[in-house]
Amino acid sequence: MRADPDRIVVCAGFLGGLGVLADLLRRRGARSVAVESYGLPHHRRLLRRAGCDTPPLPFDDRGTRPFDDAATARAVLLTPSHQFPLGLPLHPERRTALIDWARRTGGLVLEDDYDGEFRYDRQPVGALQGLDPDRVVYLGTASKSLAPGLRLGWLVLPPSLVEEVMDGMAGRTPGVLDQLTLAEFLGSGAYDRHVRAARLRYRRRRDALVAALAERAPDVRVTGIAAGLHAVLQLPPGTEQQAVRAAAWHGLAVHGLSTFRHPDAAVSPLDALVVGYGTPPDHAWAGALDALCRALP
Amino acid sequence: MRADPDRIVVCAGFLGGLGVLADLLRRRGARSVAVESYGLPHHRRLLRRAGCDTPPLPFDDRGTRPFDDAATARAVLLTPSHQFPLGLPLHPERRTALIDWARRTGGLVLEDDYDGEFRYDRQPVGALQGLDPDRVVYLGTASKSLAPGLRLGWLVLPPSLVEEVMDGMAGRTPGVLDQLTLAEFLGSGAYDRHVRAARLRYRRRRDALVAALAERAPDVRVTGIAAGLHAVLQLPPGTEQQAVRAAAWHGLAVHGLSTFRHPDAAVSPLDALVVGYGTPPDHAWAGALDALCRALP
Repeated sequence: MRADPDRIVVCAGFLGGLGVLADLLRRRGARSVAVESYGLPHHRRLLRRAGCDTPPLPFDDRGTRPFDDAATARAVLLTPSHQFPLGLPLHPERRTALIDWARRTGGLVLEDDYDGEFRYDRQPVGALQGLDPDRVVYLGTASKSLAPGLRLGWLVLPPSLVEEVMDGMAGRTPGVLDQLTLAEFLGSGAYDRHVRAARLRYRRRRDALVAALAERAPDVRVTGIAAGLHAVLQLPPGTEQQAVRAAAWHGLAVHGLSTFRHPDAAVSPLDALVVGYGTPPDHAWAGALDALCRALP
Repeated sequence: MRADPDRIVVCAGFLGGLGVLADLLRRRGARSVAVESYGLPHHRRLLRRAGCDTPPLPFDDRGTRPFDDAATARAVLLTPSHQFPLGLPLHPERRTALIDWARRTGGLVLEDDYDGEFRYDRQPVGALQGLDPDRVVYLGTASKSLAPGLRLGWLVLPPSLVEEVMDGMAGRTPGVLDQLTLAEFLGSGAYDRHVRAARLRYRRRRDALVAALAERAPDVRVTGIAAGLHAVLQLPPGTEQQAVRAAAWHGLAVHGLSTFRHPDAAVSPLDALVVGYGTPPDHAWAGALDALCRALP
């Protein structure tokens, strides 16, 4: 994605960007930011701490349905290119509906592109921001491509928000050494080389995961694997907690999908494991894969 | 100052610490944080953006008078060891009065120790936090001792605030590489050596500044020089703006004291220059000193 540099603000990771946007929304009187039915609990917590309710939006096989049940929200936070954790891209019809909502109501779309660098199988999914740069804030991060501990991310902003966001960045800017290092890394081409190499490595891991499951757990359906660093392993109803415990017993830190379910979500709970394959290091990978297969019901 | 490590939180410079505290105060219903009559405008702006009024406290030659005129404030932000920019330490009587106020009202004192490393002439001034660790938050920063662009600071917190502050740090933590580097710098003793060397260098600069002014501008009274990286040059009434312009004409960036005056302060304006002597580099220092003397009325 190319964007006018004047609209880009470097922030302290995704959470740093979300924090400054949440403050901006509160100052503008927003009391509600709609979120997806599945997502990271600490994102919702940050929004609530900033004074915004987080009503969940429902979803189906085309992805999140904008604003059937959360019409009072002034903004929506979502992961359109690779829903976290379910893994599907938002259907084009839904993308259009979302932009329509934003234009009709003056709402703001917060586009969390948390793992946009790691797309394996198909053409890149365009950023929602491209559909309406005046209504969508794009949030990118180096947390997946480099390391979450760096606390480096970036906002691509509608021009009308730049000044207010810059003002709100006081006390929220990352250290200048980190920023300059990232700029050098990007400008020299080394970042691109790193991402390409990492993408190849992660793709091989994903392929090995899918192959191992097909052989040893053929009843488990694996989804959300076109991109990113995790897969969703759908389990028979009622077996999620047992599988999480079995995985832990084998020394694996995998999450049940229920960990990410919005407590007010109207959708029926799904039983699944969310399996990140960015770790462990290579020497431990085969063993971890074997342990995972043994942990499945 | 020694403090229980469990009470220390690393933050993105002083402003990062103030930001998380301002959010905490707002969530607890505070609508007002009293500040000094002279101080940094962007500190007041950050507090106001977080939803807190910033009523100014009056001062006299013993320093800031706590809460004659701002009794509704739930917290006070001040620079007790070396008032910025006036340069005086808070009188012991006022320190006691401040702690008394905090105990009586359940108020919180935010102690900005912005240049605590650079004290030249006398015994160290104890941190206010030592008087009542349950009522005072100490804010330290590496901005003066290392560089402001690093965005590294620390809070020493009352035990009752630690959990809430940690929760509020989401999206506000400095990068882990910077934190680890600072920890190594502190642990190895290199930070202490650096500060000692810098203190000697700055002290020599201060002495040269005072000597040059005594010789070439004997009518100018120099204050606030027991510590820190700046001096206050008191000017005849009505000459501040002219002196600032003359300094700029000589290529010097010095501020008039009025830049730091709270717009609602009840005290009469003072005419003075606030002259930082941390810059320029050594090779340009003698020239800058000469230019300053020529710019004075």
